[in-house]
Amino acid sequence: MTAQIPPATPHTTGSIAAAIGAQLIGPADLPISTLETLDRAGPTTMTFIRSAAYARDWGSSSAAAALISQGLAIPGHDPARRALLVVPDADLALIKVLGMFEPKPTATPGRHAGAIIDPSAQIAATAQIGAGCVVEAGVTIGEGTVLMTDVTVGADSRIGPACRLHPGVVLYPRTVIGAGGVLHANAVIGADGFGYRPREDGRGLIKIPHIGNVEIGQGVEIGACSCIDRGKFGATVIGDGTKIDNHCQIGHNCRIGRSVIICGMCGMGGSTTIGDGVIIAGHVGVADNLTVGAGARIAAKSAVMQDVPAGESWFGYPAQPAASQMRAVVALRSLPAFMRSVRKALNLREG
Amino acid sequence: MTAQIPPATPHTTGSIAAAIGAQLIGPADLPISTLETLDRAGPTTMTFIRSAAYARDWGSSSAAAALISQGLAIPGHDPARRALLVVPDADLALIKVLGMFEPKPTATPGRHAGAIIDPSAQIAATAQIGAGCVVEAGVTIGEGTVLMTDVTVGADSRIGPACRLHPGVVLYPRTVIGAGGVLHANAVIGADGFGYRPREDGRGLIKIPHIGNVEIGQGVEIGACSCIDRGKFGATVIGDGTKIDNHCQIGHNCRIGRSVIICGMCGMGGSTTIGDGVIIAGHVGVADNLTVGAGARIAAKSAVMQDVPAGESWFGYPAQPAASQMRAVVALRSLPAFMRSVRKALNLREG
Amino acid sequence: MTAQIPPATPHTTGSIAAAIGAQLIGPADLPISTLETLDRAGPTTMTFIRSAAYARDWGSSSAAAALISQGLAIPGHDPARRALLVVPDADLALIKVLGMFEPKPTATPGRHAGAIIDPSAQIAATAQIGAGCVVEAGVTIGEGTVLMTDVTVGADSRIGPACRLHPGVVLYPRTVIGAGGVLHANAVIGADGFGYRPREDGRGLIKIPHIGNVEIGQGVEIGACSCIDRGKFGATVIGDGTKIDNHCQIGHNCRIGRSVIICGMCGMGGSTTIGDGVIIAGHVGVADNLTVGAGARIAAKSAVMQDVPAGESWFGYPAQPAASQMRAVVALRSLPAFMRSVRKALNLREG
Repeated sequence: MTAQIPPATPHTTGSIAAAIGAQLIGPADLPISTLETLDRAGPTTMTFIRSAAYARDWGSSSAAAALISQGLAIPGHDPARRALLVVPDADLALIKVLGMFEPKPTATPGRHAGAIIDPSAQIAATAQIGAGCVVEAGVTIGEGTVLMTDVTVGADSRIGPACRLHPGVVLYPRTVIGAGGVLHANAVIGADGFGYRPREDGRGLIKIPHIGNVEIGQGVEIGACSCIDRGKFGATVIGDGTKIDNHCQIGHNCRIGRSVIICGMCGMGGSTTIGDGVIIAGHVGVADNLTVGAGARIAAKSAVMQDVPAGESWFGYPAQPAASQMRAVVALRSLPAFMRSVRKALNLREG
Repeated sequence: MTAQIPPATPHTTGSIAAAIGAQLIGPADLPISTLETLDRAGPTTMTFIRSAAYARDWGSSSAAAALISQGLAIPGHDPARRALLVVPDADLALIKVLGMFEPKPTATPGRHAGAIIDPSAQIAATAQIGAGCVVEAGVTIGEGTVLMTDVTVGADSRIGPACRLHPGVVLYPRTVIGAGGVLHANAVIGADGFGYRPREDGRGLIKIPHIGNVEIGQGVEIGACSCIDRGKFGATVIGDGTKIDNHCQIGHNCRIGRSVIICGMCGMGGSTTIGDGVIIAGHVGVADNLTVGAGARIAAKSAVMQDVPAGESWFGYPAQPAASQMRAVVALRSLPAFMRSVRKALNLREG
Repeated sequence: MTAQIPPATPHTTGSIAAAIGAQLIGPADLPISTLETLDRAGPTTMTFIRSAAYARDWGSSSAAAALISQGLAIPGHDPARRALLVVPDADLALIKVLGMFEPKPTATPGRHAGAIIDPSAQIAATAQIGAGCVVEAGVTIGEGTVLMTDVTVGADSRIGPACRLHPGVVLYPRTVIGAGGVLHANAVIGADGFGYRPREDGRGLIKIPHIGNVEIGQGVEIGACSCIDRGKFGATVIGDGTKIDNHCQIGHNCRIGRSVIICGMCGMGGSTTIGDGVIIAGHVGVADNLTVGAGARIAAKSAVMQDVPAGESWFGYPAQPAASQMRAVVALRSLPAFMRSVRKALNLREG
């Protein structure tokens, strides 16, 4: 049931080995059509063996070739029939090989007849606007940028060159996206921040207008269904090279630094600052108006409720330095037995 | 303010009782237009009474009829005027009754003029493609499958028969969906996995190409706004009969087994394996590269950070076997008082 | 890189001071084009100074004017050149000023030629239906309501007056939305509830039909990518004036009260009741069939697994009254040291 991925040019074990500088143990003329995992690999596929545990399955696999790191023993290899490509760092080489087999992205070239483009929009000659897209007044779109299908670009937005906006992306008015940005399907950039005040008579809530925008730097990737709210005034800012996974929520007026990694399903409260190079694992929440210092690391599911100093690793609910939190977790697991022992020793009653 | 749901054929208390094999206590000729909760039911609606607490309200309700389990006493029932339908298992019978009243799904029959379909796509004669849909090159779509509005199907995707893709669904290229699949609105299947490596000069991040795809088995349901990322190489696999709720995130190269239930807002890290029949409650996170064994159950909000053996129930942050975790929760609640007692007994200072 | 936001009418320090009743310390004729944060403000922008910490930066800022509360000292102010607008409550005044600068929302007036509208739909004369929208049979849409782009409105839905549905919103059939509702981009209202029963032969799962709908009261705001599932039978109800942030999930048959605030990424299990005026912070989960009483407050990341009495503040995993939970958190942090002391004092072995 593997999807057929015809590479742009046919590859062989020899051409791949040459491209990545691998030592080739086996034939150089085996055609390779794609990569697959060991258990699903077929006779024209290459696989990847990371550890001795997987190496054991090489003999029974149908794969034509495998990419491995130096020093990993592969039992049962028959170099007359199949090929091993040996490199110093197979993980690094794998990225290069994946790039060789990466399918060219599909897009309707030019401006699709089914797109609705305001006459005042300035769209570069090489930009592509897919079917069902709507580009409102005053928008500018840079060279080589691709809007897939059903993308809505709100008025006065500015999209740099070489960006890709996948189907269903919505930009509210005045959004700014730097060069090379990738926005995955159904991401929403620039919705109203979530701010209300109790009505003066105490009956209901008054919405706080959000007149700001979202400004995304260069080389940023935003995951599918992720949302970045616009500023109350001023901008919500995402720094250059930052990568945000699917299902994330960035509140109004957040300032996310450069080369930050935010894994899936994280939420940042309003006006929070995340320093450069911070790594945030999945399902983390960071409360409003906090600062996470540059280079900090936050473990999965943490609830950050106070500032995190630069360079520290934090963890927990509420989050605290990871070492303290791990000691608390370990202590908690032994707590029931500890309580029994102590109550017995001290002749204390339960509760 | 109840929406009017005209059933395909008019039902009465008698016709419903006959269809589900219920004992009828009351008139057989009362017309029933829909089901409603007890407090909102009107004179042509049937309601459902699960427990004695609700049975007390039967007298003051306007409902024409109620579905109940044998043995449940209903005070104040007047069989001259209203009807009770008594069955061995009212929960089970309710499913049948709901099916009788289920509105026929709406869809534009055939191919809507406003859909954009690549000439190379192979679409079965009875498939329906709604307004605003885009079907790219090389796609195949099976008999009876319905694409509602604004669905994007990426190149070389294969959708089986009898599927329903709700509005705004996005399939990235090469996605495979088995027979009978239901994808709810704005779900995104096949976006890039979230993988980066530090650049060799330490300045910024390099994106790892993801050349794989997503393969969804037969009879799978995927909730609204849920995302399944495609494999780095090879496929992210969802097994037959598995049900995934709204707002879930399945990472690249996950292998989700058959008849798995994943409730809302769960996230699975990359390359994680979930065994057949596993049940995962809401807001759970499972870290990368783990295995949750067949038949395991994971309680809501758990953070699974190690493998879970088959058949076990786990819970907590970090998750551990549920019984241990519950003992720890109970112990923690009594910890402040315990500490005071012990400090007093031992004459220890605080902190 | 600030987006230009031309106000409808030009404002000056004097006109703004008059509008909000501020004491003006400085020139009345400085033109103000927008608001900005202190560090990004330019010569025609006004800023907002909340505290002494920010007041220190006034001297080095380029802003033309600042809004401040009475009693806050602003060192280095030169009233010949720049203006301070002094009010009793700057937070409250800020909302008024933001309203003065709020850009008019953009929308295609009338019915866009690219919209697909069923002839049986009843659309008020002043309603606007944007490009790519699909309005199915039997729908009613009230005066002044705006459907932006690519909105799908399922059959027999009823949308009140003065609503705004942002791009990509999907309403399943029979959805009801009261006057003044705002639904942000890619929100999904009325998808099937998540309910299955094991097949009688134990092999696989049977889907429970959901024949109900979603009924949203007046003045409700629903965030981007949020989902509200329809009832199994009867309605999932959202009360008047309630505000739900991005990425929330409301299960089938929930009853959410009036003026409730639900922050981002929260999930409510099926048939749960949330009382009037409840405030729920981000990333909270509430399990099925529970009741959270009116006026209760739930802290971020809590997992509510039992009923919460009206007016109480709860917190934790599992959630309990906040005061107890805070004592437990504090006790847990000192637990490792406490265990060491007690083991030493009692001569107990570890583990």
